[in-house]
Amino acid sequence: MEKAVLITIGDEILSGNTIDTNSNFIAAELKNIGIKVIQIFTISDEVETIKNTLKIAFETGDLVITTGGLGPTRDDKTKKALAEFFDDEIALDEVTFNHLKGYMERRGRADILERNREQAFVPAKSVVFQNHYGTAPCMMMEQNGKLSFSLPGVPYEVKPLIKDQIIPYLQGRFSLHYIHTRIVSVVGIPESILADIIEDWELALPGNLALSYLPVGTRVKLRLTASGDNETILKQQTEDEIQKLLPLVKGHVIATSEDKIEQILAEMLTEKQMTIATAESCTGGELAKMITSVPGSSKHFLGGVVAYATEKKVKILNVSQETVDQFTVVSEQVAQEMAKGCQELFDSHISLSTTGVAGPGKGEDGKEVGTVFYTIRVNEKEVTSKLYLPHLERVDFMDFVAQKVIQDLVGLLISG
Amino acid sequence: MEKAVLITIGDEILSGNTIDTNSNFIAAELKNIGIKVIQIFTISDEVETIKNTLKIAFETGDLVITTGGLGPTRDDKTKKALAEFFDDEIALDEVTFNHLKGYMERRGRADILERNREQAFVPAKSVVFQNHYGTAPCMMMEQNGKLSFSLPGVPYEVKPLIKDQIIPYLQGRFSLHYIHTRIVSVVGIPESILADIIEDWELALPGNLALSYLPVGTRVKLRLTASGDNETILKQQTEDEIQKLLPLVKGHVIATSEDKIEQILAEMLTEKQMTIATAESCTGGELAKMITSVPGSSKHFLGGVVAYATEKKVKILNVSQETVDQFTVVSEQVAQEMAKGCQELFDSHISLSTTGVAGPGKGEDGKEVGTVFYTIRVNEKEVTSKLYLPHLERVDFMDFVAQKVIQDLVGLLISG
Repeated sequence: MEKAVLITIGDEILSGNTIDTNSNFIAAELKNIGIKVIQIFTISDEVETIKNTLKIAFETGDLVITTGGLGPTRDDKTKKALAEFFDDEIALDEVTFNHLKGYMERRGRADILERNREQAFVPAKSVVFQNHYGTAPCMMMEQNGKLSFSLPGVPYEVKPLIKDQIIPYLQGRFSLHYIHTRIVSVVGIPESILADIIEDWELALPGNLALSYLPVGTRVKLRLTASGDNETILKQQTEDEIQKLLPLVKGHVIATSEDKIEQILAEMLTEKQMTIATAESCTGGELAKMITSVPGSSKHFLGGVVAYATEKKVKILNVSQETVDQFTVVSEQVAQEMAKGCQELFDSHISLSTTGVAGPGKGEDGKEVGTVFYTIRVNEKEVTSKLYLPHLERVDFMDFVAQKVIQDLVGLLISG
Repeated sequence: MEKAVLITIGDEILSGNTIDTNSNFIAAELKNIGIKVIQIFTISDEVETIKNTLKIAFETGDLVITTGGLGPTRDDKTKKALAEFFDDEIALDEVTFNHLKGYMERRGRADILERNREQAFVPAKSVVFQNHYGTAPCMMMEQNGKLSFSLPGVPYEVKPLIKDQIIPYLQGRFSLHYIHTRIVSVVGIPESILADIIEDWELALPGNLALSYLPVGTRVKLRLTASGDNETILKQQTEDEIQKLLPLVKGHVIATSEDKIEQILAEMLTEKQMTIATAESCTGGELAKMITSVPGSSKHFLGGVVAYATEKKVKILNVSQETVDQFTVVSEQVAQEMAKGCQELFDSHISLSTTGVAGPGKGEDGKEVGTVFYTIRVNEKEVTSKLYLPHLERVDFMDFVAQKVIQDLVGLLISG
């Protein structure tokens, strides 16, 4: 199997200013065509460091992909490092220059600055993949059958370059092995107990199948990865193993294919032809965001309300002021009334509500930071739960609660 | 200045299954106490690979922090690698075992499994930092004045370990240099033109100040990082340089301190004592999520509606059905009516609305994927804009639009 090494160039990652999402995207895309990422280096924007890392990367990888360190400003040293490493000269590439000119003219910038013109200078031996969404071109270099691709760092530019140009190129270039992955999502069994339960099964897996445990909140994703030459055989092999696994974790499996809980939910809602709406307080829109992040969600998601101020819970969601006065706004009772009001407002089969204190300050009624009540209402049935998560930071808290609510809903829909 | 190397251990990162957010968090925390991350390695969970990477890391770093590769399941090889690398034995640590027992009893699991008991086995020379939010302890090793910390990979466990235990320890241990960072956010000038405008200023910066360009959507963040021994001098130096910079980019600066646009907005709203509400369609809750992700946002955010289905726009936001029929739901007119309806519903000073087609399928009225109209309404004034972003994937589209809307609002509030 071809092995790839990724190099992320940029002080903004090392300083903790930016999260590297490019590596994740590239690794997933490569995996789909059977190329395995064996290492990721994140390094600073210095010529010597880049050259040294290229050297180390080519010792183990057949393919090296760099992102970052290209752009119109002065903190970009990748091209120089590439030219020195591959013993090449930097020269103006006419095709790239014309592409760049067209790109900028379409954006109403008739004068090409010297700084942008410099972007059309590339190592003379490089093959250029034009960037349709930015000014830095992607350069491919080749040596002894090994390839390097150098891309800019902006994710919106990286994604189309990888997906539309580099992946098709690699597929044509290599006769690739196949990788097949299946994920089984298990809830209600702690990771360590789960490992004990499935130990014998795991030890008996064929050599070309590997298992990983990925805990996500209170869910554990079991990922089975198979590699080999024949796609049909791989799929069959994986399916066979999953059929042996399922009886061992019976009643705890919420999905056997999809990865993300919101996608699992979307499939269920489509299958059951049910609609959903949300009424959020402490999750601040995250529940709606998660549900709508799935393509096609407009078929089942009718809408949501983020009722942050208490009076809006009363006005829009029809929560009774008496209930708030009696039980406080962060209470089981308010969560229930929010869900009921939401179901009525949107006329949906399902409604979800959250009310809690995300922190860092205490809630207006003095409830402890990290307390949350949420209600899941499916037709006439409803379940209200409480969570206490004082150790989570604000955004993590919002994410965790939203994940948990959707996970619980999936659990409810499975059990009937 | 102390230099740190981070090692992320885990096939789930290399396979593109999980985004590494730990490195970002750790790098930012270390930077705050003057420790610079010079490299990040992401590697697979194999004893030899971990040992080799530790070796390379210690060649340049004074401090190595590993995350991942610890946990109750069998794909964890970090401890073995640590013991071999530091020429140590693995032994049961009684204190850790008792901590673990207490941790599990509090969670209602009286029986300690063999698999969990193994988690109390650590390299004999290690100093253990107990994990209060999980079962894998954090181990510190020391050799020739250099330190390594090995943490589990779960972000909710990493954050408190770093913040509450490791950072205070490092502060006590090293006499640290200071790092001071300021970010100036500029809008309306492309990166390349900006670089030309401020070139002379940049070249004249003192040697201990470094400038980075961080493009985020249509905004460019200029980050000035100063390092040195005296915190007061650093702050003054940075402030002096920013005062020289500001006249050069006059009229384009939206913030001179905060980093995130939603934080900038929060400060402005607090200062102006204005309230805000949202009416979203294609951003699906992301606008509300961004605004509420800032601590204290309950003071100005009254609430939001995610009106996904057209009929809900009519019912809840008072959009006229005639307008929808005449102009389609993805139109300037509907965006305007959504914003107006939202302002009335929540009785807020400001309202924001979005209506568009996030894709991948075309909208119900046949509008092209990537088209969005958004309205910003401040008291009686309103501005409606259109974006066309066909190249963005669904979630990126939602994020980009939400960022742009808030950025535009900030611009509007600045200009009066």
